[in-house]
Formats: sequence, structure tokens, C-alpha cells
Amino acid sequence: MKIVPIQEFDLKREVDYGTPEQNATVKQIVRDIKVEGDAALLRYTEKYDRTALSSEQLRVTPEELKAAYERVEPSFVKAITAAASNIRSFHMRQKRNSWMDMQPDGSILGQIIRPLKRVGVYVPGGKAAYPSSVLMNVIPAQVAGVPEIVMVTPPGTNGKEGIDPYILVAAAEAGVNEIYRVGGAQAIAALAYGTESIAPVDKICGPGNIYVALAKREVYGAVDIDSIAGPSEIVVLADESADPAYVAADLLSQAEHDEMASAILVTPSQAFAEATSVEVARQLALLPRRDIAGASIENYGAIIVVESIEEGISVVNRLAPEHLEIVVEDPMSYVGSIENAGAIFLGPYSSEPVGDYFAGPNHIIPTNGTARFSSPVDVDDFIKKSSMIYYSKEALLQNGAMIMELARHEGLEGHARAIEVRLEKEGRVNNGQ
Amino acid sequence: MKIVPIQEFDLKREVDYGTPEQNATVKQIVRDIKVEGDAALLRYTEKYDRTALSSEQLRVTPEELKAAYERVEPSFVKAITAAASNIRSFHMRQKRNSWMDMQPDGSILGQIIRPLKRVGVYVPGGKAAYPSSVLMNVIPAQVAGVPEIVMVTPPGTNGKEGIDPYILVAAAEAGVNEIYRVGGAQAIAALAYGTESIAPVDKICGPGNIYVALAKREVYGAVDIDSIAGPSEIVVLADESADPAYVAADLLSQAEHDEMASAILVTPSQAFAEATSVEVARQLALLPRRDIAGASIENYGAIIVVESIEEGISVVNRLAPEHLEIVVEDPMSYVGSIENAGAIFLGPYSSEPVGDYFAGPNHIIPTNGTARFSSPVDVDDFIKKSSMIYYSKEALLQNGAMIMELARHEGLEGHARAIEVRLEKEGRVNNGQ
Repeated sequence: MKIVPIQEFDLKREVDYGTPEQNATVKQIVRDIKVEGDAALLRYTEKYDRTALSSEQLRVTPEELKAAYERVEPSFVKAITAAASNIRSFHMRQKRNSWMDMQPDGSILGQIIRPLKRVGVYVPGGKAAYPSSVLMNVIPAQVAGVPEIVMVTPPGTNGKEGIDPYILVAAAEAGVNEIYRVGGAQAIAALAYGTESIAPVDKICGPGNIYVALAKREVYGAVDIDSIAGPSEIVVLADESADPAYVAADLLSQAEHDEMASAILVTPSQAFAEATSVEVARQLALLPRRDIAGASIENYGAIIVVESIEEGISVVNRLAPEHLEIVVEDPMSYVGSIENAGAIFLGPYSSEPVGDYFAGPNHIIPTNGTARFSSPVDVDDFIKKSSMIYYSKEALLQNGAMIMELARHEGLEGHARAIEVRLEKEGRVNNGQ
Repeated sequence: MKIVPIQEFDLKREVDYGTPEQNATVKQIVRDIKVEGDAALLRYTEKYDRTALSSEQLRVTPEELKAAYERVEPSFVKAITAAASNIRSFHMRQKRNSWMDMQPDGSILGQIIRPLKRVGVYVPGGKAAYPSSVLMNVIPAQVAGVPEIVMVTPPGTNGKEGIDPYILVAAAEAGVNEIYRVGGAQAIAALAYGTESIAPVDKICGPGNIYVALAKREVYGAVDIDSIAGPSEIVVLADESADPAYVAADLLSQAEHDEMASAILVTPSQAFAEATSVEVARQLALLPRRDIAGASIENYGAIIVVESIEEGISVVNRLAPEHLEIVVEDPMSYVGSIENAGAIFLGPYSSEPVGDYFAGPNHIIPTNGTARFSSPVDVDDFIKKSSMIYYSKEALLQNGAMIMELARHEGLEGHARAIEVRLEKEGRVNNGQ
């Protein structure tokens, strides 16, 4: 792993907006589903997933869900159940109440907080079918109180293998029981506009390939969508108190995701930098995904030696990484200085996979430097707020003239008159004060 | 105003994505500002705002801000100060604390809530320069704790009149003192990428014309942006206990905004429908903006007579209006049934302009049916969250095997090894349990 002097690193990588052909294909699919409903949905499922289904076969049956449990190891069920419980506990802490503020004049102002009514979660097929992502998308919605959570996922390779049973178990543990075997842009369009078999949703979330990403962008506005994730990143800020073997393993766990993933070590110690570089090389050679991890380390990995932890923190804040590990003496003393990081892992035992799978916080975290202004997925992503104004007669009489002043200044006489008609009827005339 | 039977109304109107020429112009401007900085900013300001400025003249001086107070009426200052105070009080109620959850095994999980560091607010020039919008954009950011709030607004007509003093007073009352006299797509690009004179921001908000909207879309990703507002809407749900003159005035106050604005009355009473229709016609004839309001009422206005209040509520929930007034006996008893509405005004004295200008809740509210899944602007729009994980050694020893199980199931051996290297060093070996 390269040790490089401090310089203008940038974690931002190009966002894939698809080719013109991909965009045209997606637009056509979305249009067809919108117009033709199930007919188009079944046609595209046969075309792209090579699976012939009837409308009645789209939905996964309770029997299939139950049968999935018999196809997975008990140790997996134990682990996914424990993870789901932790994730649920953490997200429960984020729940908020509607509130009202009673004014002395009898007026009531407030904010009503409600869950979205129906949410769709996309789960990719094949090797990208991650049970952990099912939990991370579904549980926040469920904790928010969303009454209808629906999942879509491709029907399986050539319709033979069916849906991955691990995905079905994760869905069941997370509390989803409405699952449709459709994928790709056609599944996104079906969730957005509805078909005879699938009722439309208010929001669509979950990862997918470029067609899924383009389809989400295409239907945005008709429904809400989550943000589209870029390649994953980690920055480790460590000093000589850290174990180079631990840090190297954490850097590699990020690098193995994807050739575009980025793993960066920031340290004030040249000796630690060198020791970690050696460890990365040693461990990399033993990794099954060494080709991917190696490309990531080569192209987007770096060790930056800084003058001090404080300088390291300013590098971190500039990079605004998705994941940050702070592995120094007394890591908590630096947390207050971290302005930009999606998730912060503190101390030697908070390895990133602890958060990816198990501890409770969400693993869907802003990438590509966007932690500067955005946040990990949480319960807030599945609620909506309504303002509430109950104005008393006394409040209107008291403040009406000021409201009219502001409206008239903006040239909106109709606004002023909506107040004036009330003041007049209540026996007062606007006296300009 | 047309009385129509219940049918498939839809408040959605076409979103303006601009012409290809407008898109090309905006892309060129953004590119030039990004590359040339101030030089391009000054050039475009001269070209589009017909105002020749030097870099030193871009920023509004403290003297200008002070002088603005002498150019506005004391009654305006009084009203805007009172409005700012109410808006601040309401938004203060939305502030949230970072939190930590201490686990029995010594682990600490939490969510760190921080304000964005620097926010830019766009304020249009000319007739669309609304002091109330300055308050509604700036105050939530200020309450969130954003340390740097910067405003941009066109330099004025031909550079002669300068910036509207009412806007400057509103900015000062809201607490902004960094103001630049630039507008259009060039101002948005300067906020997003920075120039020699204007430091880049993390988020851009505020209304503007099509060029401003397209520029915000263009820079999104480099910075966050607010949502782009559609035409304004009101739905009034009223029964015979309401005053037709009040309801008509409220409908017209919405209609006068814009020919695309929509005003809809939903009522179970044919008599009330007819009385309100007559009142709308009477009051419309007296309105200065009767051409605009008349076109809005004609094209996007309607009175829908329903069987019952309950049926009316289902119409409301389907329309998901930006503004909803409930003017019936005991309006509070229906609030729990309102699933979709951006702002809810209850009772005869809660005329929409009360909320537009004064009461405290934000007047930037989701339009075009998006109240189904989005919310009025509030303090949450100016914060970001970071997850925090401090895992104890005990927790890792206890849970490590389950984390490895989940990682290995997903084919991410590097993730498993990041845990395993720690378990091994701590004198334990993964025993598969």
C-alpha cells in the first residue's frame, strides 16, 4: 500500500448516469409498465429474467417463506435474528412524537409526525443478494410505523433456483410478508405506478444495478426514492497504539467490496504507516477476493502520514468519509472534532464489519463526500411531517394588522383581504397598526 | 367557481425541466464559474443583470445593511420582527440532541447530530423578492446552528436601484450578514464551487426562476439542494358552520399567487358550495390580481360536493395538498384522519396567510401531491447525523462469531477476517458458535 505525503486527496468518484441506450431502455420499460401494468411486468420478467410467470405467481406464498427456513443453517438464523434485534433497538431510539405548543392566546401550533403508508424495498438477485441489506432497509421503515412494507426481488436464475432462501429468511425476520418475484427497472416501475397485482408505494429504497438506479431516478417525483449509493469508503485514523494487523484487515474489508472502493489510512506515525503497509500486503495475498481488493488498494488506497492527530482530523473532515475508524489512545476525545463522517467507529474493537452487520446503526451511509450534508438511513427517512396551526380569534385580532402589512408589502392583496374579512366581521376594522 | 361532482381530481401539474437551450446555457454558466471563478461571475453579472462590479463590490457592506432600515417603514420592521420571533420559537421546538445508548457489555452506540457548516440562500430579485421567504429559509438553518449562512440576490435592475431594502432588513432580522449581489445560475454555481470572493457551501436553498432551478439541479451532489417547489395549492374542507366569505377569501389568496395555483373546496353541503361560489365571484372582481386569480380558479379551481366529511377526508388524503384548511365544527376531531397534507389549518381564524407570514411554522411546504412522502422545511433540513459505534472487547468476543457467519454468508471473507484477527489475538479462536 502506497505511503504518500499529505496532498489533495478526494474521495469523490464519477457517478454512473448510464449510457444513452440504458436510459432509453429504462424509459421504455417504465412507460410500458405504467400503461400496461401486469402484462408488461410479466413480459419483461420473461425477457430479462427468463422466467414465465402468471399474475397469480408473482407473489411469494406463506408456504415458500416458511420453507426457506428449512433451507438455511440454524447458525444463520441465530445470527440474523440477533442482528435484527440490535438494529431494531438502535432505530427505536430515533422515534419521535408529534408535538403541540399551546400559546397563551389559546392558539395551538404543532408538528404531526406520521409514517409513510407504503414502502417498497428492492433487493438485487444473484451474488448481490445481501440479507444484511434487507434488514437495514426494512427495519427503519418498520420502526417508523410504516404499515405496508413490500419487497421485490428477481425470480432467480432462469426461474429454476427461485429466490435466495437467506433473503426470504431475512425478510421474514425483518417483518415483511408481501414479496414479489420481480426485478430490474420493471419492478421499480411497478412499485411507483402500481399494476393489477402490486399496489403503488410512497417510497422506494434499496440498492440495485444501473437499470434499477436509472428507473428510480425516472420515477422520482411520483414517489420518493432513497439516495443512490456510490462506491464504499473507509478512512482509518490511527496512531502507534493501534495494531497494524487490525487496521490492515479493516482496510482490506473495505477494499474487497468493489474495485472502486477506497481505503485510506491517516496516521502521524511513519513507523505505523510502514508496518500497516506490510500487513496489508501480507493479508491481501491470502484473501479470496484479492483481485478486487488489490485493484481497490492500488487505485483508491493510500496511507497518508500527517504531523499530528489534529492534522489527521482536518484531512478526515475534508474527505467526509462514509466510514471512519479512530484507533488512537482515548478516541472519544476526538469525536467532538469530527465534522464530516457518516459512521464513526471508535477504538480497537470497533471494526467496520461490526457496524456492517450487527451492532445496530444502519449500514446505508452517505458516500462520495456527501457526509458533509447527508446522513445514514434512519427512521426519519420513513416519516413525513405536517405542520398544524389552530389560530385563536384573540390571536388573529392581535396580529391581523401585522400579517396584512407583510402581505401587502409583497403585493398579495388577496392574502391581506383573507385576514381583513375576518377582522371586519369581528367588529374591528384594520386601523393600520 | 365550478361546482363539480366528486371525480378523479389530481393536484399534480407538469414539472418544468426547461428547454434544451436553457439547459445548455446553465451548463455553460456552471462550467465557466467552476473554472474561472470571480472572472466568470462578474462577466455573467454584467451580461444578465447589466451591472458592472469588481470583486470587492460583490459583498453587501455593513453600512448598506444599516441604511436599509432607514428606507423601510417602522410598521414593516415591527411586523417582520414579530414574524421572525414566532418562526424562531416554532423551529426551536424541533431541535434534537445527539444521543448515546450505553450497553450492558460496555459498548456505546449513538447518533451525533450536527448542523451543516455553511448554507447558501438564494433570494430572487424584482417582484419575487419576498421578505417572508428570507425568514422561512434562513431561520431554520440558524436554529439548527449553522455557523455560516450566506445570501445571494441579484444586484438590482440595471444596477441602479440596488437590492430591495426590505430583503436586506429581513436578512438582518433573520441573522444573515454575509450577502453577495449576484443572482441567476452564476450565483448558484458560485455557492456550489466557490470563487475567489465566495466560499463554497454545503447546501443551497431558496426559490428562483427556471435558470436558478436548473442550476441547482446541475450542482446537486457537489452540494445538497432543497426540493424545487411546484405551483401552490390549497384544499379547504368546510361544512355549513363555516363562513362562505372567509372560505372564498382563503381560496382566492391561494389563486392570486400564480395562474398555475390550485384552490379547491370540498364540502358535504350543496348550499355552502353555492354560497361560496357566489362569494368567490364577488370578491374576485375586487382583487388587484384578478387576472391571475381568475385564471387559476378557472383552470385549477373546483368545488367538490361530497356525501360526508369522512368522504371529504378521503378526497383530501388522495390529493395530498400543500395547504389544508379544515373549517368544520370541532375540526380537531378530524386531524387524526388526515394522512397527507403539508400544513393543516384548523378552525375559522386559521386563514392560510396566518401561516404564510406569521404564526411560526414554515411556509415552504411540499407541493404537487408530494406531501404523501415529504415535509415542510424545518430544522432537520440543516443538520446531518453520524452514527457512532464504540464496541467493547467483551461485545466483540461475545458476538464475533455471529458477525463472521453473516459476512461469510455474503462471500465477504475480508470482513470475517477483520473480526477473526481480533478474536485470535485476544486468545480465542473462532469456534463457530
